Amino acid sequence: MQTLKDLKALTAFLKETQVLSSAISLLSWDQETYMPSGSGQARAEQLSALMGLVHERQTGKEMSQLLSASVDLETGELKAGSSSGDARASALLREIWRDYHRATQLPSDFVRRMGLECSLAHQVWIEARNKNDFAHFAPSLKKIVALKKEEIDYLGYEASPYDPLLDTFEPGLTVAQIAPVFAALKEMLVPFVEKIAASPAQPKDDFLRAFYDEEKQIIFGKKVLAAMGFSFDAGRQDISAHPFTTSFHPTDVRITTRVDPHDLLSSLFSSIHEGGHGLYDQGLSVADFGTPLGESISLGIHESQSRLWENGVGRSRPFWRYFFPILKETFPDVLKGVEVEGFYAAINAVRPSMIRVESDEVTYNLHIMLRFEIERQLIEGDLKVDALPELWNAKMEEYLGVRPKTDAEGVLQDVHWSGGAFGYFPTYTLGNLYAAQFLNQAKKEMPELDARIEAGDLLPLKKWLNDKIHRWGRQYTSGELVQKVCGETLNPKYFSDHLHKKFGEIYRLE
Amino acid sequence: MQTLKDLKALTAFLKETQVLSSAISLLSWDQETYMPSGSGQARAEQLSALMGLVHERQTGKEMSQLLSASVDLETGELKAGSSSGDARASALLREIWRDYHRATQLPSDFVRRMGLECSLAHQVWIEARNKNDFAHFAPSLKKIVALKKEEIDYLGYEASPYDPLLDTFEPGLTVAQIAPVFAALKEMLVPFVEKIAASPAQPKDDFLRAFYDEEKQIIFGKKVLAAMGFSFDAGRQDISAHPFTTSFHPTDVRITTRVDPHDLLSSLFSSIHEGGHGLYDQGLSVADFGTPLGESISLGIHESQSRLWENGVGRSRPFWRYFFPILKETFPDVLKGVEVEGFYAAINAVRPSMIRVESDEVTYNLHIMLRFEIERQLIEGDLKVDALPELWNAKMEEYLGVRPKTDAEGVLQDVHWSGGAFGYFPTYTLGNLYAAQFLNQAKKEMPELDARIEAGDLLPLKKWLNDKIHRWGRQYTSGELVQKVCGETLNPKYFSDHLHKKFGEIYRLE
Repeated sequence: MQTLKDLKALTAFLKETQVLSSAISLLSWDQETYMPSGSGQARAEQLSALMGLVHERQTGKEMSQLLSASVDLETGELKAGSSSGDARASALLREIWRDYHRATQLPSDFVRRMGLECSLAHQVWIEARNKNDFAHFAPSLKKIVALKKEEIDYLGYEASPYDPLLDTFEPGLTVAQIAPVFAALKEMLVPFVEKIAASPAQPKDDFLRAFYDEEKQIIFGKKVLAAMGFSFDAGRQDISAHPFTTSFHPTDVRITTRVDPHDLLSSLFSSIHEGGHGLYDQGLSVADFGTPLGESISLGIHESQSRLWENGVGRSRPFWRYFFPILKETFPDVLKGVEVEGFYAAINAVRPSMIRVESDEVTYNLHIMLRFEIERQLIEGDLKVDALPELWNAKMEEYLGVRPKTDAEGVLQDVHWSGGAFGYFPTYTLGNLYAAQFLNQAKKEMPELDARIEAGDLLPLKKWLNDKIHRWGRQYTSGELVQKVCGETLNPKYFSDHLHKKFGEIYRLE
Repeated sequence: MQTLKDLKALTAFLKETQVLSSAISLLSWDQETYMPSGSGQARAEQLSALMGLVHERQTGKEMSQLLSASVDLETGELKAGSSSGDARASALLREIWRDYHRATQLPSDFVRRMGLECSLAHQVWIEARNKNDFAHFAPSLKKIVALKKEEIDYLGYEASPYDPLLDTFEPGLTVAQIAPVFAALKEMLVPFVEKIAASPAQPKDDFLRAFYDEEKQIIFGKKVLAAMGFSFDAGRQDISAHPFTTSFHPTDVRITTRVDPHDLLSSLFSSIHEGGHGLYDQGLSVADFGTPLGESISLGIHESQSRLWENGVGRSRPFWRYFFPILKETFPDVLKGVEVEGFYAAINAVRPSMIRVESDEVTYNLHIMLRFEIERQLIEGDLKVDALPELWNAKMEEYLGVRPKTDAEGVLQDVHWSGGAFGYFPTYTLGNLYAAQFLNQAKKEMPELDARIEAGDLLPLKKWLNDKIHRWGRQYTSGELVQKVCGETLNPKYFSDHLHKKFGEIYRLE
């Protein structure tokens, strides 16, 4: 029987590969935060070369020799005597093979071309967004869509060409599974949004767009992050155009935010959101760094952590019973006369908006649905890139009743496509569903949780998540983990119940 | 005959290696500027692993195969038909072989151990300096000295074991060459410093230690950098404990500074100094990136660029005739009553100080001499690491007449030894000598140069340096370059003449 110890040579090789990947992450982080404007081309070449080197290591002779000692490289089956009985070791081998198999499906040359194109496209996307001009970005996006189709050819698929893209971010997920979930959500959400819009009980929230000093916003956000247990000894927060989290190691996790002096919520909730991601990355096993047991399971599970903190905690009444007085001390003039109940209603105002990352809990998944549908049409059908802005705007009108006036507040708002991340958006909705399910379970196990949060003590929840989710890495698949933590598989009911209860009360629906 | 074109496969391989090296540089830059405090261990492992990978590429089969097509790997001789007649190509091969030969002398395992130890020692050095405690750093330094001796065994030497360390930073330089230069300098400087100290004409400079707002200092420094032609589209400036310059590509050159509200000169002159380094790196050939033709020649030549700007320009009268009114506008209260002549004398005050990087032009090389002598005793003799603080302090007293009261202002002040950079310090003095020689030549070729500087136009000098020095990369050795630019080899006379003329006037010496 092989144990983790016997796999030492293999894991040492993986750790060294991960060091290269961490260097890529640092180059990308730097690109978003501090890189001088004139070095985009050089950085693109650097990223492409490094991605190629990583890919060569992931698929080369040394890797295949090390892995083939324990696993049949063709089928992924463990060889006789390989880690039978050691659950960690067999999960490790299963996940290493999954990564190996996926990586060997893509030629190194393709990985380099994709890396180079994405890095260049990213610069072009920034320019296009600044210029409000989709046509400037379209040629890059066309190249990326073509590359994704090439990628699908390498990966292969059974039911839908979109499946391997989903699988990239949420292992095992298929259109056949997720499309009905979206359909049910749409059926529930569109009339629910209309009902809310028709309610006479509309929260007053114009004070959220008064002037809030940027530095004070950042300082308040950092207080919240510290209370969540985000370690600034093992991480930091910077400013970037699009908030994100990246990790080089559990002791070096970087989150970013953006700050708008006339929008109190933008920086605050992006901080809490990325902080939730950051806690996951800081909570991964240091001992298993570089191997699948030290990695997050999937983007859906990752997003469940950010959304649980952002919405389940950060938009909850107990949280603000504690933090609102502190916020009021920070901005005494602007918040004079606002009480905690009014603030709670205001930050939960449901108002169809153009921008996904600033949308409320109710309409958020409609933004995702729109992207999911467009991506499927690009990948499964024959939708042309040039037709995107018009289709985007039409769907916004259909689902949310609002129509973007510019590309920047429409089709150009998200970074994802410029990075080739098709199949990524659905994991946001999955994250919302998992988040509601996990938080429901945490409250069941810790009936005092709301009281702790109301006392400003967020650490019991952080520790519960560390214990139940973070520390396992990829030992379980996302399905297995949800089953293990909650005693049942994915169940959208908790999310739906949460929305009806919370917004039913705020909007006084019958 | 081979030309640069024929060497395409070799240079492509080198460029990819350079991308890895640039990643190392970014990890190091980040370590000094933004890395969270808790991730020192992980970063050390990352740097060590990457250095090992780079070293494997520099010495591995692919490299030796590519190079052996043109060069005899044992002797470095060009093979028949290799680039005969093409000066660029033959210089390229000469320098590639030099790097290859040096790299193959060191085992990969050694490179990794050295990388790991230096990264750890760097953290320890920071702690020791903060705690003012050399004993805390001593165990790390002992390990590094032992590693350097191991390195010397691999590299071999003829006359002195210190020679291969000098050669690392200044190719071809030996103790036999540089020791007499230092001896002559010492003979000139020690009495010159005494004469200056005895002069009744001592500049008043206490106003330099008034309060200067830190942000305004940085903004003024950036104005000077912009005037020098440092491109902020192809570089940036950050804050770090010890100012440095690093380059990932000619389009991404990073300099740092430190800022002290009670020391106007610290940030200002470190900005100009690192700016001089930065101009060299920004002036290297983009087309030759990754190959020796796109790299700087030596640390001595690199330092000549920083010292030329810092002292030759930044501490000159014409420079301040233009910039002093701007500085006065920036700090009107503190500088009220100070005139440009008084300011010029104040920033050139010769006052033996503890800290090398804050010392004046006259005493600076005595700081270097002390380090050179200590390093030789550590490497050639049997000086014990534990004896360093006492020896340091005794030499300070002998050469400069001042004695450090703490380790932080004594033996712990420099970052170099924690990074294993023995043999580095002498290049600072070489830089001073080259700088004086280059500036003398520039003024000979451009008699209007001082007038241009006085008009605030620093670009003619920047362009001259770009043209005469930067763009050539390593096509010439440092000796050949000085000969080519100045029509003679290294001549310390220009430095000596400069000191006597400038400080003879300020201190009214006969």
